[in-house]
Amino acid sequence: MNGIVVQNIARAAPEIIDGLAACGVATVHEAQGRTGLLASYMRPIYPGSRIAGSAVTISAPPGDNWMVHVAIEQLRPGDILVIAPTSPCEDGYFGDLLATSAQARGCRGLIINAGIRDVRDLTEMRFPVWSKAVFAQGTIKASLGSVNVPVVCAGASIEAGDVIVADDDGVCVVKREQAETVLAAAQAREANEGDKRRRLAAGELGLDMYKMREKLAGMGLKYV
Amino acid sequence: MNGIVVQNIARAAPEIIDGLAACGVATVHEAQGRTGLLASYMRPIYPGSRIAGSAVTISAPPGDNWMVHVAIEQLRPGDILVIAPTSPCEDGYFGDLLATSAQARGCRGLIINAGIRDVRDLTEMRFPVWSKAVFAQGTIKASLGSVNVPVVCAGASIEAGDVIVADDDGVCVVKREQAETVLAAAQAREANEGDKRRRLAAGELGLDMYKMREKLAGMGLKYV
Amino acid sequence: MNGIVVQNIARAAPEIIDGLAACGVATVHEAQGRTGLLASYMRPIYPGSRIAGSAVTISAPPGDNWMVHVAIEQLRPGDILVIAPTSPCEDGYFGDLLATSAQARGCRGLIINAGIRDVRDLTEMRFPVWSKAVFAQGTIKASLGSVNVPVVCAGASIEAGDVIVADDDGVCVVKREQAETVLAAAQAREANEGDKRRRLAAGELGLDMYKMREKLAGMGLKYV
Amino acid sequence: MNGIVVQNIARAAPEIIDGLAACGVATVHEAQGRTGLLASYMRPIYPGSRIAGSAVTISAPPGDNWMVHVAIEQLRPGDILVIAPTSPCEDGYFGDLLATSAQARGCRGLIINAGIRDVRDLTEMRFPVWSKAVFAQGTIKASLGSVNVPVVCAGASIEAGDVIVADDDGVCVVKREQAETVLAAAQAREANEGDKRRRLAAGELGLDMYKMREKLAGMGLKYV
Amino acid sequence: MNGIVVQNIARAAPEIIDGLAACGVATVHEAQGRTGLLASYMRPIYPGSRIAGSAVTISAPPGDNWMVHVAIEQLRPGDILVIAPTSPCEDGYFGDLLATSAQARGCRGLIINAGIRDVRDLTEMRFPVWSKAVFAQGTIKASLGSVNVPVVCAGASIEAGDVIVADDDGVCVVKREQAETVLAAAQAREANEGDKRRRLAAGELGLDMYKMREKLAGMGLKYV
Amino acid sequence: MNGIVVQNIARAAPEIIDGLAACGVATVHEAQGRTGLLASYMRPIYPGSRIAGSAVTISAPPGDNWMVHVAIEQLRPGDILVIAPTSPCEDGYFGDLLATSAQARGCRGLIINAGIRDVRDLTEMRFPVWSKAVFAQGTIKASLGSVNVPVVCAGASIEAGDVIVADDDGVCVVKREQAETVLAAAQAREANEGDKRRRLAAGELGLDMYKMREKLAGMGLKYV
Repeated sequence: MNGIVVQNIARAAPEIIDGLAACGVATVHEAQGRTGLLASYMRPIYPGSRIAGSAVTISAPPGDNWMVHVAIEQLRPGDILVIAPTSPCEDGYFGDLLATSAQARGCRGLIINAGIRDVRDLTEMRFPVWSKAVFAQGTIKASLGSVNVPVVCAGASIEAGDVIVADDDGVCVVKREQAETVLAAAQAREANEGDKRRRLAAGELGLDMYKMREKLAGMGLKYV
Repeated sequence: MNGIVVQNIARAAPEIIDGLAACGVATVHEAQGRTGLLASYMRPIYPGSRIAGSAVTISAPPGDNWMVHVAIEQLRPGDILVIAPTSPCEDGYFGDLLATSAQARGCRGLIINAGIRDVRDLTEMRFPVWSKAVFAQGTIKASLGSVNVPVVCAGASIEAGDVIVADDDGVCVVKREQAETVLAAAQAREANEGDKRRRLAAGELGLDMYKMREKLAGMGLKYV
Repeated sequence: MNGIVVQNIARAAPEIIDGLAACGVATVHEAQGRTGLLASYMRPIYPGSRIAGSAVTISAPPGDNWMVHVAIEQLRPGDILVIAPTSPCEDGYFGDLLATSAQARGCRGLIINAGIRDVRDLTEMRFPVWSKAVFAQGTIKASLGSVNVPVVCAGASIEAGDVIVADDDGVCVVKREQAETVLAAAQAREANEGDKRRRLAAGELGLDMYKMREKLAGMGLKYV
Repeated sequence: MNGIVVQNIARAAPEIIDGLAACGVATVHEAQGRTGLLASYMRPIYPGSRIAGSAVTISAPPGDNWMVHVAIEQLRPGDILVIAPTSPCEDGYFGDLLATSAQARGCRGLIINAGIRDVRDLTEMRFPVWSKAVFAQGTIKASLGSVNVPVVCAGASIEAGDVIVADDDGVCVVKREQAETVLAAAQAREANEGDKRRRLAAGELGLDMYKMREKLAGMGLKYV
Repeated sequence: MNGIVVQNIARAAPEIIDGLAACGVATVHEAQGRTGLLASYMRPIYPGSRIAGSAVTISAPPGDNWMVHVAIEQLRPGDILVIAPTSPCEDGYFGDLLATSAQARGCRGLIINAGIRDVRDLTEMRFPVWSKAVFAQGTIKASLGSVNVPVVCAGASIEAGDVIVADDDGVCVVKREQAETVLAAAQAREANEGDKRRRLAAGELGLDMYKMREKLAGMGLKYV
Repeated sequence: MNGIVVQNIARAAPEIIDGLAACGVATVHEAQGRTGLLASYMRPIYPGSRIAGSAVTISAPPGDNWMVHVAIEQLRPGDILVIAPTSPCEDGYFGDLLATSAQARGCRGLIINAGIRDVRDLTEMRFPVWSKAVFAQGTIKASLGSVNVPVVCAGASIEAGDVIVADDDGVCVVKREQAETVLAAAQAREANEGDKRRRLAAGELGLDMYKMREKLAGMGLKYV
């Protein structure tokens, strides 16, 4: 089961992917039934990015970044690299040279349950990364891993071709087959929120807007 | 003891609150005898804010943000929301809609011993938050908590109406009854620091300025 | 072994130190055989700094910052303070007054395996700090420590006069006696990287550039 | 507010305290409305203890155990020491000599949001401790703290004389004034559980015993 | 995708499951290519258990243990309960009453990425548990989850009917379809180890037994 | 600096080493001026061991246990293995086969800033281990490290031949050249403690025995 590169993976349609990016992590997560979030320790190396793309996954040995080179060949424009070590590790698998190579192939960013380095260069290149750590520790190239196999990354199950959405709130994965449905639900949710936002900004209370007062009283809430 | 909303809480005078904001967390903490700090994991979602306000407290069940709606009705201009889950939780209790509502009522910011989401929107709105985590995980509205009861938040004991001071150094609570005394001590401390800063900037050593050399020698410090 | 201040320490040549700063943490760490990194939890208080300097070390009791005053007298222009508590601590040993004093003596920054405060002032002063925590908790001045003795700081062994390199990737220590050799190796590495970066940016794959395909096939990598 | 020793504290009746010990942490916590638990990192140094007693509280500077000597004089038979440092610390405040002294005065155990040492001796003495860490790091005797003042310990608010209950599940605090009421509720809960336990052991399902099936179906649970 | 109970799940043959238990976690993990381990924070509540069984999985809301009652009905003798909250949580989902009920149905133990309570009772009952925390915090019964759906638990992907192996080394999951193959590999590995153990116990060095000396010398290892 | 095996290391005299073991970690740590402790996360895999021995150190790549085989050849009766990965790692470097081999050469135990496995076997063999984690994750044999070079292990600086003392309180290192002096100080301390223990057990207070009352009053301690 190790040492495998899956070459032809299915991807969601570009307009669906871009639609999900526009909705953002919190809305997409809600729209798909509050599932798909990666752990909260996955933080962006700089603020303000909001991306979505198809996952090219890497199952990597701890401290060994050889498979990243293999995976870069599999990247298509609009993809996002997802690196999941097979045991906990914070070594710096990825830096400015790999980012240059990935960006040259149209890669939109990196999700890595480990460390990252050359943060200054990556920030200048506007190559966004969500990682567990910033750590310059070098890696080796000695053992095989696999590319485009299913992985568990920061607590979420991800398959190649799934849609990754990432912004300042963190990272969320959408199953490829559900991406269209989720997008529709997310957009409906967004449309709905505009009106709510205007009413709340005007001073209306959520207690009234959502008609919560009776239910709260029924459960025994007491004002003293 | 659960399911209670205390409606009329005493607050410190606005000019005292604003005075404490101007002094900042480190000075206020020192001025009240090195007490009142919340845990260091409470970090701002964006740098540069410095606020103070009266605490409107929420004791919330883990993963349930219903009481936030209840608490928003209790907000007066200049208040700060303080959310303390009853067991450890990093779910995202609060996002842009609640912030819009709170801001409409004059709320100055949020202190939450849990997660927060919609960080990008909150940053654009300039609604400052100090939280344990950034995490988009949705919450439910199923159980009662209480509003304006005493809570322990990130290691600090907070009562409704206590003054919360928050800036890039973290969060500090000042007991309402002591706010005036603490402000006086903090301002005295600040006045005192201006002169010290000038002398140190001019190259004078703390060893001399504070007359530490003899005491250090007396304790046995050796220069080799 | 406690209560000692070593006054005359050897330092690396300024041009070597500045050369190491220009190379940055990741390159220097690689150039010296992937050694010398401090733990990844040592983070800068604001992004964008890149410094190097000679270590003036402080072995400090937990929660006691008295020795910082003693160490400041030992600072020469171009030095970097390194504070290592003798047991785990996140109290705020250092703030704007000490930074003013250190900066007046030419100190380039602070590395501290504990807490820091007055982050806003330090940011405005452009006095860079890499710390374990931001925490306003005040310290006392009751016990002796030592200055310019060997310390273990965030997992790295550091002697006075060693060269500290710090940037957005973290902190690395270079043994003083090896600084010249490491600089040469780091610069060679950098020269080498420019060409690689251009080729990767043009779309060449690392698999080809580094001639990895045969070796991977030999180890059994399978494309499916 | 520092440097104070409160000498005469009220305590709950011994039979109430012993009754709470017999119920154990989980039952007592439930009986008082799911409140009062200390953080889950507070673990016993050896398994199998189940104690309750009146809290003699210590607010201690980090790394300074002087106040423990002061507090021991305040101990009465049946008391439990509660040590809360004013900033996070894992130094070893307490070992076999202090335990010998405390045990000689009838102290039943120690709750400490910091470190402990001489674990082997304490185990042989059967002096139970719930602590954040086992760490031999020595402390100093240089600064004052306070005894029998209100503290926040591992996330729980504790006043002198409150009843502490501790067993293999952790630590729970019961407000002294509520101890009798909580005991009654806890005992009622226990009586109730015996019958449930027998029915469940006989194979009856909770789904039936608690009549959950209809409610689950009504919420939409689907069997496939 | 929520609120579903899958009733008929496939299970591995009992003799395969028992064979895997006899091999233990470390051997099984190696035999299946070093995959399947749950995170190292999953620790047994008492030492000395070694079990294997078919996973009955629970995807549970944070702080809500309602689905445990639903899952217990699905247990067959030899099964192991696996509880995975949908966001990080250490509340005590499970105690002696639920254990009594599960044990009455032949359940061999519990794997839970959250908290557990009544540790003393569970130890006396010899109902083994591997958990993230021991914490008495009570849970509610307000929201649906699902039973026997795929979950990610402590970093490992688990489907209902997969074989769980657990002992003092932690927890490992074996895909049901691969259980027979893995058992054969594990037993071969064990047979192989007996001879090695005897030779090593007699003083033979691994360097010689595994013929490592030449390879190490070839890579440049130097004896000084 | 990597790929080196230092063969002839100096060791302290056996009677000094055994004397330090008899004193235990807390006493030895105090006797050498409160230095030398490893981090508190280094915990024994089973309670009750108390050992001392000469350190045979291993600087190991993360996830690679090849050097353990090399180091075992360097073991002499009475030695203790010390494994320090060069970046944070919790993989299981060591299990029952390596323990069998080490024990055959007279090794007294293992200190490892990483993971360990086969805990049940090691417990039965009475081969004590202090580790950062229990984790079955397998390691590779692909890269060189070094044996008997200076390492930093769990925050402490350790050289080959230094004396390691370990018991239920954790792990402490004593510099080889200071071992005799430290032993004398530790034994003096122990002799001193017997009398104190008797007086405290008889009910004398530390306040009186150490004559603290005046000093406390002088600092302003108030009894209310």
